[in-house]
Amino acid sequence: MRFAAVIALAFGLTLGSALAQDYVSEEIERQARALIAKSLESSVGYDVIESLTTEVGPRLAGSEAEARARAWGVAKFKQLGFKNVRVETFNMPYWERNYEDAEIVSPFPQKLTVTALGGSVATPVEGVQGEVVRFETMQDLRDAPLTGIEGKIVFVDEYMTRTQDGSGYGVAVQKRSGAANEAGKRGAIAALIRSVGTDSHRNPHTGQMRYEEGVAKVPTAALSAPDADQLQRALSRGAVTLWLALDVESPGERRSGNVLAEIPGRTDEIVLIGGHLDSWDLGTGAIDDGAGIGITVGAAKMIMEMGKKPERTIRVVMFGSEETGLWGARAYAAQHADELDKHIVGAESDFGAGRIYRFETKFAEGKLDRAAEMQRVLAPLGIGPGPNTASGGPDMIPAAAAGMPVVTLKQNGWDYFDLHHTPDDTLDKIDPDDIAQNVAAYAAFVWMAANIEGDFRAEAEGSDQGSD
Amino acid sequence: MRFAAVIALAFGLTLGSALAQDYVSEEIERQARALIAKSLESSVGYDVIESLTTEVGPRLAGSEAEARARAWGVAKFKQLGFKNVRVETFNMPYWERNYEDAEIVSPFPQKLTVTALGGSVATPVEGVQGEVVRFETMQDLRDAPLTGIEGKIVFVDEYMTRTQDGSGYGVAVQKRSGAANEAGKRGAIAALIRSVGTDSHRNPHTGQMRYEEGVAKVPTAALSAPDADQLQRALSRGAVTLWLALDVESPGERRSGNVLAEIPGRTDEIVLIGGHLDSWDLGTGAIDDGAGIGITVGAAKMIMEMGKKPERTIRVVMFGSEETGLWGARAYAAQHADELDKHIVGAESDFGAGRIYRFETKFAEGKLDRAAEMQRVLAPLGIGPGPNTASGGPDMIPAAAAGMPVVTLKQNGWDYFDLHHTPDDTLDKIDPDDIAQNVAAYAAFVWMAANIEGDFRAEAEGSDQGSD
Repeated sequence: MRFAAVIALAFGLTLGSALAQDYVSEEIERQARALIAKSLESSVGYDVIESLTTEVGPRLAGSEAEARARAWGVAKFKQLGFKNVRVETFNMPYWERNYEDAEIVSPFPQKLTVTALGGSVATPVEGVQGEVVRFETMQDLRDAPLTGIEGKIVFVDEYMTRTQDGSGYGVAVQKRSGAANEAGKRGAIAALIRSVGTDSHRNPHTGQMRYEEGVAKVPTAALSAPDADQLQRALSRGAVTLWLALDVESPGERRSGNVLAEIPGRTDEIVLIGGHLDSWDLGTGAIDDGAGIGITVGAAKMIMEMGKKPERTIRVVMFGSEETGLWGARAYAAQHADELDKHIVGAESDFGAGRIYRFETKFAEGKLDRAAEMQRVLAPLGIGPGPNTASGGPDMIPAAAAGMPVVTLKQNGWDYFDLHHTPDDTLDKIDPDDIAQNVAAYAAFVWMAANIEGDFRAEAEGSDQGSD
Repeated sequence: MRFAAVIALAFGLTLGSALAQDYVSEEIERQARALIAKSLESSVGYDVIESLTTEVGPRLAGSEAEARARAWGVAKFKQLGFKNVRVETFNMPYWERNYEDAEIVSPFPQKLTVTALGGSVATPVEGVQGEVVRFETMQDLRDAPLTGIEGKIVFVDEYMTRTQDGSGYGVAVQKRSGAANEAGKRGAIAALIRSVGTDSHRNPHTGQMRYEEGVAKVPTAALSAPDADQLQRALSRGAVTLWLALDVESPGERRSGNVLAEIPGRTDEIVLIGGHLDSWDLGTGAIDDGAGIGITVGAAKMIMEMGKKPERTIRVVMFGSEETGLWGARAYAAQHADELDKHIVGAESDFGAGRIYRFETKFAEGKLDRAAEMQRVLAPLGIGPGPNTASGGPDMIPAAAAGMPVVTLKQNGWDYFDLHHTPDDTLDKIDPDDIAQNVAAYAAFVWMAANIEGDFRAEAEGSDQGSD
């Protein structure tokens, strides 16, 4: 894999020198290619992930562990030589898990592996017990009559499709909030879902859910895929009674925060990259999103090591409390509202540790030639052109909504939902070579974006679009 | 895979008709080949596994769930048309798990995934807490001085080698009892091991351990591989304090039992096959040993469907309480002591759900020509000749020790220890085509053994070895 990358790189270097670049100068392009070569030989990104997942481990949004992660972030940024290292705090509603358990009571008594969904209410201490009503899809539950399942336990057994681009998630994740809300409307006593995931291991997938206003709040949890299979098989033989106990708490607001650091540039314009610092409590948040922290911090470190000052400031943010509702992203957009127009582009890495295969943008239509130039420099890494419909990653959404152009360096997500939000999201699942490819891509992209001529926004009304 | 098997089978049939068989008659060989063809198209073995793992689920030795498994076994045998269905009971020492938990207390507070080893004593209710002392191998711990680790927690971090034949297990499993015993001798307060397994998922491997006489009994548990990695990384940074709580019980003797059934033959000689009915409590015992139950019951059922009476009686046994010390196997050998000399061969399936690749025996040297004949009939299934050092499977050990010849239809165990004794030992891990190949091999082997001329034992002193 490394050999192939070196070959491709050599080819890219040859080809690159022949490219007619209009906005990325020949010097910047040469530096970007050098960053790629150096990054592929560096373990800086992986080392950051190793440090975070070992020295902090799980770091639930709003928890004491997330506070330790911020302290870790400050120390790590300083140790690596970043400037303007600081924490920007905010409050968010806290939720935590103490204990969870489920059993088939009859006709085949046995334990099931289950995990509460984030935001769920608790069951009574003695748990809830009732007959299970299975719905093959979330739509089937939505279409069900409003009466007839009072006192029962809803089970939405919808499968998720495995895809490279994660598009199966959007469909499958609807049941995560939907099951409890539709169950509550129908007088059910609990809602279970087949985990939103693509694996078949005994590790259930948690994730945030939200109750709709005015709907009875019923406790809700996810079964691992093998347990959902088991419940399905039991139900195929007749009525099943299930017991569920969730001891979870929502004790009110807690402090969270974003950790910021910079490589100062010559102007007040900003290139924004980052990942999110919080993780779900079950794993150690290696792929979600230790990887994003390691990749973006690592890329900026590679740039720093080059020893050249960028035109624009490169800002790296470790966002807090992403998982529970983009609290860090919204706080950032609010706290930096007066300089959002100086953010020329933003990109978050938050889709695991797979290799990047596509350069996606959300630029003004008139600025797509700049995207094409940058993509051609990344091509030797196996990164092709992508659509102009990028989100930039979840923590870029509030700033993007305010007009910030974004880039998504799209990763292969084929295996991402095997591990996402499970106890199994741990460091051993990450290939250091894949992280190095990500660091290389981010380093080259960020260096080009920080030095490119012009920007990615639409020209102001009345200006000459052809002038740049 | 199925296509290849059919091709191989056709080739085998052609070849078979040309073989000069001395002990397996042409008619029996033809019937054995027909059994292979029918078994490859049947789901009977898989269906039995599906039924057991769904309708009983986990079935710890001596538990109420194991009693339900015996009732299931009796009903299943009768439903399939077996004769002489009966339960033979015995007592065994019971152990059960209530609760287990572990945490790194300092310097990086976080939960670890842990499971008590079978037979472990409990910790005090408040748990035990101490500094961790890591040993890279079990031998390193054995070689350690008898003083210097008093009050500490031993951690044996030895890895297991992945092999097709499971030979890595014999080495790795030594730490399962060894860690606690050596820790006890040294005044340590607990013993942790890296799970005896080859996977890297957050599912720890349990398994039986035994305290040596006169050694202080310390609580002992296994960390999942990712947790062992994590502890190793934490220790690489300095001293680590860990907390461990195990709530387990050994309340005395409980009733267990073997479930027997037969296809009666024309003589009082017996061909013995089976699997074990009990499983560890964490998973549903699909590969260990629902598979063995399904494969051997399924094979006998295929023979029954042929509608021909065998020369020898075919006896299928679902052994109880294998995992905790071969209690069922020992009870069987004791309860059938007066007819063990009539057992012409025994074979247990207890190595998962992988395909069979080798026909191993433990026959008298003078009877290996019979082994060669049977193996040639199995060859189209991809089954080659094996050594004459077979164990016959764990539940055959006591009868084999009393002189019973045994066969091991050796399965590919490459993935077996990814799942063995974990919560992840569930039905979804089993490929029905692989089970059909196993059923085909057992059906053909058992039919040949039940009808072969002569037996597999050494001739009585003074008899003419050349006469048969």
